[in-house]
Amino acid sequence: MSRLGIIAGGGALPRKLIRACQRDGKPFFVLALQGQTDKKNLVDVPHQWSRVGAINEAVGILKAENVDTLVMAGAVRRPGLMEMRPDWRTIQVFARLGTAAFGDDALLRAAASELEKDGFKLIGAHEIEPELITPAGVLTRKQPSAENNADLEYGLRVAKALGQLDVGQAAVVQQGVVLGVEALEGTDALLKRCRSLKCKGRGGVLVKASKPQQDKRLDLPTIGLRTVRHAYEAGLEGIAVEAGASLLLDREEVIAAADKLGMFVAGIRA
Amino acid sequence: MSRLGIIAGGGALPRKLIRACQRDGKPFFVLALQGQTDKKNLVDVPHQWSRVGAINEAVGILKAENVDTLVMAGAVRRPGLMEMRPDWRTIQVFARLGTAAFGDDALLRAAASELEKDGFKLIGAHEIEPELITPAGVLTRKQPSAENNADLEYGLRVAKALGQLDVGQAAVVQQGVVLGVEALEGTDALLKRCRSLKCKGRGGVLVKASKPQQDKRLDLPTIGLRTVRHAYEAGLEGIAVEAGASLLLDREEVIAAADKLGMFVAGIRA
Repeated sequence: MSRLGIIAGGGALPRKLIRACQRDGKPFFVLALQGQTDKKNLVDVPHQWSRVGAINEAVGILKAENVDTLVMAGAVRRPGLMEMRPDWRTIQVFARLGTAAFGDDALLRAAASELEKDGFKLIGAHEIEPELITPAGVLTRKQPSAENNADLEYGLRVAKALGQLDVGQAAVVQQGVVLGVEALEGTDALLKRCRSLKCKGRGGVLVKASKPQQDKRLDLPTIGLRTVRHAYEAGLEGIAVEAGASLLLDREEVIAAADKLGMFVAGIRA
Repeated sequence: MSRLGIIAGGGALPRKLIRACQRDGKPFFVLALQGQTDKKNLVDVPHQWSRVGAINEAVGILKAENVDTLVMAGAVRRPGLMEMRPDWRTIQVFARLGTAAFGDDALLRAAASELEKDGFKLIGAHEIEPELITPAGVLTRKQPSAENNADLEYGLRVAKALGQLDVGQAAVVQQGVVLGVEALEGTDALLKRCRSLKCKGRGGVLVKASKPQQDKRLDLPTIGLRTVRHAYEAGLEGIAVEAGASLLLDREEVIAAADKLGMFVAGIRA
């Protein structure tokens, strides 16, 4: 019987999908990526290890494991060219992309289309677990203030501009000033840095948005309990992510935690 | 006799201008800003302290000190609204700007135009010391590689997009991936963070560019010896700033230091 292949990047998303498959009795197989996948996700789970630069090896493993459908789950940090040790097929992908500047996103899309060429059907995490998609509206008791909304609007424009250039997905804004924007460091590191950048006084929001060119099957912006904790520790008043185009892990726990901390969590429209 | 007023933000630029005035025998007066101006710049220098939120007080001091021309030198970090304790005139500026989101740059421009209304002539730092402007071309023995140039081109696009949104002026790129972008934390903090984000292997450049809407008299992107040191410690191969639209402090020392460290420094066109 054919199986769902979960290509597991970092973070908690691979575990959510593994749980969903186990719950639904759906046959699956995990392709773990060296230096990216959390080993804790793999206990009692059918899996094999590969690495980012080995597309050809990955295809071989997935075919041997009878995988026909693929989901890419969790952020995959692109290693340096040297560290990557690309196999011949990965090199062909690079050659096709050219020597022009290209970011994480271009590489991810290229890898995905390469896998599709081999007949794999690529689906999004939300197709396995629709509840992961962030709904529109304020989800918490706390509502954003007028000032919060102005900062959210500004942060959304910044996040979209960053996304368009394939830089990152997140921005932190307080009182009309952008405290920090995300590139390779990720949202957790961004929030940690903002602890010392936030000025005294009210306000402060985190915005995460999908890239304008986002393929919804790949690397959607994601928040979870850890995001709420880090945002709280940075002194922020709330978090907004793009409704319908982002993943909200552990929705109930996230809302409960935000309610307890007096923060808002909202799905906003671009 | 009327004097040049130097409104002194952070960094080394105010000192350069003070030195230039002393060298040229040009009468001057420094308005130091609490929490922004480096006190070391003020030894044996005619000055008075004020604060960012006190436009009316600043105007009073500058008029009493017989200042007719003003230069704003060095980055001015906008304090939080509470911390700022704006005087009535500053509040009027805020009211005019409206409650919509506005960044550091909008505030700086508003402050500048407020001072111009009072009859002060505003000039740029390069009008006092033309040598500060970055020339076009590679200034060091080391030349950027083809890969460096691709990263510079990408970084320039990112920096310009950030600038347009009034977020920041700098980006660090390696092998086609944006390691980090600057917002409120400043270039030094950005470079420190990139130490752990840079992947093994070659490449890595810092790009700083002016904002598309930049008033050349205000807050031009600036690099100096400290930038070279931080870029080196981050493992970068070179630095590019926008020719004709950025300030290069201590040009000779910067070039000598970069030559010694095997790095390039270049002025590039947008």
